[in-house]
Amino acid sequence: MSSLEFFRLKTREEVLALYGRFEPLGTEMVELLAALGRTPAHNVIAPEAAPGFPRATMDGYAVRARDTFGASAGAPAYLHIVGEAPMGAAPERAIGPEEAMRAPTGAMLPPDADAVVMLEYTAEHPDRTLEVRRPVAQGENTLQPGEDVRPGEVVCPAGVPLRPQDLGLLAALGITQVQVYRRPRVAVFSSGDEIVPLDAQPGPGQVRDSNAYMAAAQVAAWGGIHMLRGIVPDDFEALKSALAAALEEADLILISGGSSVGARDLTLTAIQALSGAEILVHGVAMRPGKPTILAALAGGAKPLLGLPGHPASAAVVMEVLGRPLMERLAGLAPAPPWGGTVTALLSRNLAGASGREDYVRVKLRQEGDTLWADPVLGPSGLLSPMVKSHGLVMIPLGLEGLLRGEEVTVRLF
Amino acid sequence: MSSLEFFRLKTREEVLALYGRFEPLGTEMVELLAALGRTPAHNVIAPEAAPGFPRATMDGYAVRARDTFGASAGAPAYLHIVGEAPMGAAPERAIGPEEAMRAPTGAMLPPDADAVVMLEYTAEHPDRTLEVRRPVAQGENTLQPGEDVRPGEVVCPAGVPLRPQDLGLLAALGITQVQVYRRPRVAVFSSGDEIVPLDAQPGPGQVRDSNAYMAAAQVAAWGGIHMLRGIVPDDFEALKSALAAALEEADLILISGGSSVGARDLTLTAIQALSGAEILVHGVAMRPGKPTILAALAGGAKPLLGLPGHPASAAVVMEVLGRPLMERLAGLAPAPPWGGTVTALLSRNLAGASGREDYVRVKLRQEGDTLWADPVLGPSGLLSPMVKSHGLVMIPLGLEGLLRGEEVTVRLF
Repeated sequence: MSSLEFFRLKTREEVLALYGRFEPLGTEMVELLAALGRTPAHNVIAPEAAPGFPRATMDGYAVRARDTFGASAGAPAYLHIVGEAPMGAAPERAIGPEEAMRAPTGAMLPPDADAVVMLEYTAEHPDRTLEVRRPVAQGENTLQPGEDVRPGEVVCPAGVPLRPQDLGLLAALGITQVQVYRRPRVAVFSSGDEIVPLDAQPGPGQVRDSNAYMAAAQVAAWGGIHMLRGIVPDDFEALKSALAAALEEADLILISGGSSVGARDLTLTAIQALSGAEILVHGVAMRPGKPTILAALAGGAKPLLGLPGHPASAAVVMEVLGRPLMERLAGLAPAPPWGGTVTALLSRNLAGASGREDYVRVKLRQEGDTLWADPVLGPSGLLSPMVKSHGLVMIPLGLEGLLRGEEVTVRLF
Repeated sequence: MSSLEFFRLKTREEVLALYGRFEPLGTEMVELLAALGRTPAHNVIAPEAAPGFPRATMDGYAVRARDTFGASAGAPAYLHIVGEAPMGAAPERAIGPEEAMRAPTGAMLPPDADAVVMLEYTAEHPDRTLEVRRPVAQGENTLQPGEDVRPGEVVCPAGVPLRPQDLGLLAALGITQVQVYRRPRVAVFSSGDEIVPLDAQPGPGQVRDSNAYMAAAQVAAWGGIHMLRGIVPDDFEALKSALAAALEEADLILISGGSSVGARDLTLTAIQALSGAEILVHGVAMRPGKPTILAALAGGAKPLLGLPGHPASAAVVMEVLGRPLMERLAGLAPAPPWGGTVTALLSRNLAGASGREDYVRVKLRQEGDTLWADPVLGPSGLLSPMVKSHGLVMIPLGLEGLLRGEEVTVRLF
């Protein structure tokens, strides 16, 4: 019986609560387009109003709204046309009572104009008289200064990754650089004497290093920078010195562990031998994913996540525990609950795992108006069920299971 | 009345049907981790079986299942232990009747073993006798060769972007490179005399080039390579030669157009003046987004999409029409209907646009178990409503509107 058995299984919530001890990484300034998907470190504040001037939002005529009061096809209002508002420059003059100025969409309104009559409700007479067949309300077909954004307003809050439309608004405000959190640098190790590199032909009993590649791809998909550190033999000194070297560069260390008890014990011993290391979690009440390790290295500053050896277990632990850890380091505010999920009906009964949260792979299937979640069963040692699935359904701790026809939230991956 | 008026408004479906005339781009070979999110050009076939040998999936003892028949705590089976299956190598011998071999998770089973008894249901006696307190079925706690993937099986179909778990499976099979479609190179222009660069201080009537940045960010978010080509003045010759130059390098051209009728006419005329150009669409039955242009340039090989000038219109047209066009070029198979959507209840009545599909921005709000979609109203000239929204709800053509409390599909952006 190994030392690991002294650790009580922790729940997912308990593990997530421990992430608070790791501080978000430092920040860096990046150019606007490079900020896509990155997380602002501070609230981004509008330095000026948008729009900065009153604009026409339709092709038509800038007018004083009161001059069109009661206008109709039968009894049009007649205004005098005093030229055209240019694109990209201020109109040469204001308009006076019963005057109108041609205004293409986007043009600045002349002083004293407070509305735009759409082209289709007007006619120009040869003597520069404008016939207006409908009244406009004050402000109609215009944008007022600051109507989009007022100066000093928070346009992009800290902690929320930037989307294309956010960059559009920042561009409109002349913000060409954004201070964002650094992307986590994640060292990925594999351990296990049975693991060989991808380009090797595995001998009897050997398998290729697939978990490290899957984890590295997940890191990239979630905005991190992966550093593949290769395969470490099941050897205490080799593992310890590989970890120590990775700590120099990485913000987070992932070990795609040996799957046997012996390999896990060795990993644990090597971690404990690092100066300033503390094992926080060994064993999580989830299925798959029980043999997960969380440690704080470098005096508590840098997390290490030890992944289970079974491919499907490693993938689920990365999704459920690794991703929030990366998001913590990357300064992300908690994501809204609907992001990357879809609601479906379970197509068969599922029994839960006693004393553990149970994560079941599902394949989605549309049938008429109904979206079905078909459980994709199979041992955690298989990769293909993950590949055939669209997401995960969680059976909460303490629930006996879920019934056919129940509405479930599928977390897409 | 301009020449554009001769074009009948096309429906979204009609526009999408026209995309079939543009061929997917060429392909390239990329390294495995660089293939994340990329689209295989051909079905990827398993060159070998996975796993390649029979494996233990639990720490325990490899046995012949029949030798454990009827075993219980009260009447255990007793087997003779003949050593340990090593990690990463073939066991030195087969097992015979009433023999057992220690087998850590992941180890290769010895010949003639057909199951693994878990550690917890056994005890080792000092004389190398193994006490087995439970029977195992044939195959239990093992993986058989080819159980994950059979040789010749399609593991990743052409046209479906690769996810981390797909890369994991390819790694397991020793596939280190993948033939994928090229990423579309997308030239992005802005036209309009009122547009100034981001780093300029706009004068009266001028606005910064925000639509081009938003469109470029969308291109990047959807896997394309953006080439920002800057602002072209509202001038026929300038526009025509800028388009011709972009055709040399780009697979797709986006013009974030002048918003006025005059600017749109000019864009149309410049496109028509290019040799081998054909205007396919001018005007789409959607709101916002009516003044959208689709053209085939370079003798039909390269599409051009002219975006409306209003920022919110441009963003919606990119999402609804630009994204499928990029996906067509990038060789993507049609995406499943649930990707990037969420179901919510509409929090107020919405009137549709007569004769047009109507796209309404919504903000999602969780209230207990209910997810509400709150419409975010505001003219298309504003950017901030896009920024405050989480997605779009579509009111189909011919529908008068949607009612408060109706279930709607929100397309997240």
